[in-house]
Amino acid sequence: MTAPFGRVAVLGLGLVGGSLARLLQARGVPVVGQDLDGGAVAGARAAGLTATGDVAEAVDGADLVVLAVPLRAMRATAQEVARYLGAEATLTDVGSVKGPVRHAAEAAGLGDRYVGAHPMAGTEHSGFAASSAQLLDRAPWAVTVRGATSGSGGADTNPRTEARLERLLRLVTGPLAGTVAVLTDDVHDEAAALVSHVPHVLATQLLNAVAGAPVRDAALGLAAGSFRDGTRVAHTDPSRTEAMVTENAAWVAPVLRKTIRDLEALVAALETNAPVHGFFHAADDVRGQARPGERLARAADPSVALVPGWPGRLVERCAAGSVVVGLTDTEVLLAR
Amino acid sequence: MTAPFGRVAVLGLGLVGGSLARLLQARGVPVVGQDLDGGAVAGARAAGLTATGDVAEAVDGADLVVLAVPLRAMRATAQEVARYLGAEATLTDVGSVKGPVRHAAEAAGLGDRYVGAHPMAGTEHSGFAASSAQLLDRAPWAVTVRGATSGSGGADTNPRTEARLERLLRLVTGPLAGTVAVLTDDVHDEAAALVSHVPHVLATQLLNAVAGAPVRDAALGLAAGSFRDGTRVAHTDPSRTEAMVTENAAWVAPVLRKTIRDLEALVAALETNAPVHGFFHAADDVRGQARPGERLARAADPSVALVPGWPGRLVERCAAGSVVVGLTDTEVLLAR
Repeated sequence: MTAPFGRVAVLGLGLVGGSLARLLQARGVPVVGQDLDGGAVAGARAAGLTATGDVAEAVDGADLVVLAVPLRAMRATAQEVARYLGAEATLTDVGSVKGPVRHAAEAAGLGDRYVGAHPMAGTEHSGFAASSAQLLDRAPWAVTVRGATSGSGGADTNPRTEARLERLLRLVTGPLAGTVAVLTDDVHDEAAALVSHVPHVLATQLLNAVAGAPVRDAALGLAAGSFRDGTRVAHTDPSRTEAMVTENAAWVAPVLRKTIRDLEALVAALETNAPVHGFFHAADDVRGQARPGERLARAADPSVALVPGWPGRLVERCAAGSVVVGLTDTEVLLAR
Repeated sequence: MTAPFGRVAVLGLGLVGGSLARLLQARGVPVVGQDLDGGAVAGARAAGLTATGDVAEAVDGADLVVLAVPLRAMRATAQEVARYLGAEATLTDVGSVKGPVRHAAEAAGLGDRYVGAHPMAGTEHSGFAASSAQLLDRAPWAVTVRGATSGSGGADTNPRTEARLERLLRLVTGPLAGTVAVLTDDVHDEAAALVSHVPHVLATQLLNAVAGAPVRDAALGLAAGSFRDGTRVAHTDPSRTEAMVTENAAWVAPVLRKTIRDLEALVAALETNAPVHGFFHAADDVRGQARPGERLARAADPSVALVPGWPGRLVERCAAGSVVVGLTDTEVLLAR
């Protein structure tokens, strides 16, 4: 069995980085946090964490370094990390898009030491003050590997990357009690456009439409559940949403193009009293399924053996909806 | 002071009608429920309500008749009600669009006895079994009057309609403990398109996009808060959503047209690396405001006197965001 990581360095102590550092500490994993902002460092220390303002101090001797800085700072931070990261150490991150972060790691010469990660949790708040060990406890994660150059969606990993991936899966499904979908960067980023980035865009659009309407005050007075839920994420920091959407523009744009085409067909039908039944019933088979957060049954084939090439097999299973729930000495255990 | 209503008849014992009947009963208002479905009638009786399958029996002697049937059944039900409704009785409804229900009332010759109403509450469930007195307790309501023919947005009411409106406001803000925005049908229906119908359309579109995507299973596996919230109302009965949207197509279509134009501008910018800051920050002033369900401060001018023409003044105040919270013998009390 591959040994777990020793010390973990978390660079960036905002909502997600701060929550990750707190959870690691709560589970007995040695962790040091770093942030350029003195207030975040002081807050982390007050919360009982080891924290520093210095990247070199945090990275030196760390077994795993987690980039938890804003997306726009990933490239510069990766460059700085490269000056101090040990040859055997692993680099990961918690960014909401994965292709661009891998490019940042590769540009810093750290492509072979990088495994992407994205914990699927957040709130509309931000900053260390909003962080908590609970936020990421038992969270669903995506962990990503480089796609095969054939573009078939398969994974492209080598034995050293496999060992890094295995250790990261043991950390997330062990001390962090999470579940993990192992995906290629491309599948992650397309899926994230569908289930996160475009939902953020449409929530913003709903809020924009009301804000600019002549009947705005009456409309806000009438707003109830569907508007509150439909715009909840539009109340998060709009600059962070903007960064997330623009970093993943390559995947967001085609989903938005399709959204526009679908809405045009609907509105044309509404304007001519043509049938709109198809639009409202197109997702009936998904509608019948369990919703996010209500799942995890035993998978039909509940494991993938840890033999060379296992990441590729895992990526295929996860693309079909399975998630990693744990590892034995010889197997990756799946549920769905 | 205008006397409150005597017996109330609720026609249709689904989620909203059933919840209204339960709440009226709980608050000591005499109520009889009616439904064509024997199961709903039996359920209502088991819940301690007086219920019948017969419209004539329910309407005869009722002071207030509430149409709580599906939108597509409003016209036929209004026609039947017209055969039994007393000359002094009042007709209202709980439909999610108001212009088409007024037309149904007018077609049945009941235009002068009709005041529109729409309680702003619901769940993704339906039917009497899902109803509860809690659903509409303290709910925000819209109550609507005919718009002035000038199209200025002003109210067009006569003294007999004013008395009916006053009694309905006393019922909702008294025994039902609700708040009321008094609006013209047009302002209600445009506002409802903005804060309810188009949100339902976009939630449906989000679910459709994932359901039809090649990465569907991976995407559903990654789905977290933004997708769960953004698609919640898409899990409601899609046929009911379809009816709500098509009944209000005249107001939904232009909002969707604007949505399409805004999304086209955004995607064009994303595809050319042009700035998208404006899109994400367009609603910053609304973003800073209290959200639905977090409001009700004392209005600057906290009342409208019950002197002839008061509905018109009330409509102006509510269009600016005020709501009715109660009535004295001489005044309508407002908050915002």
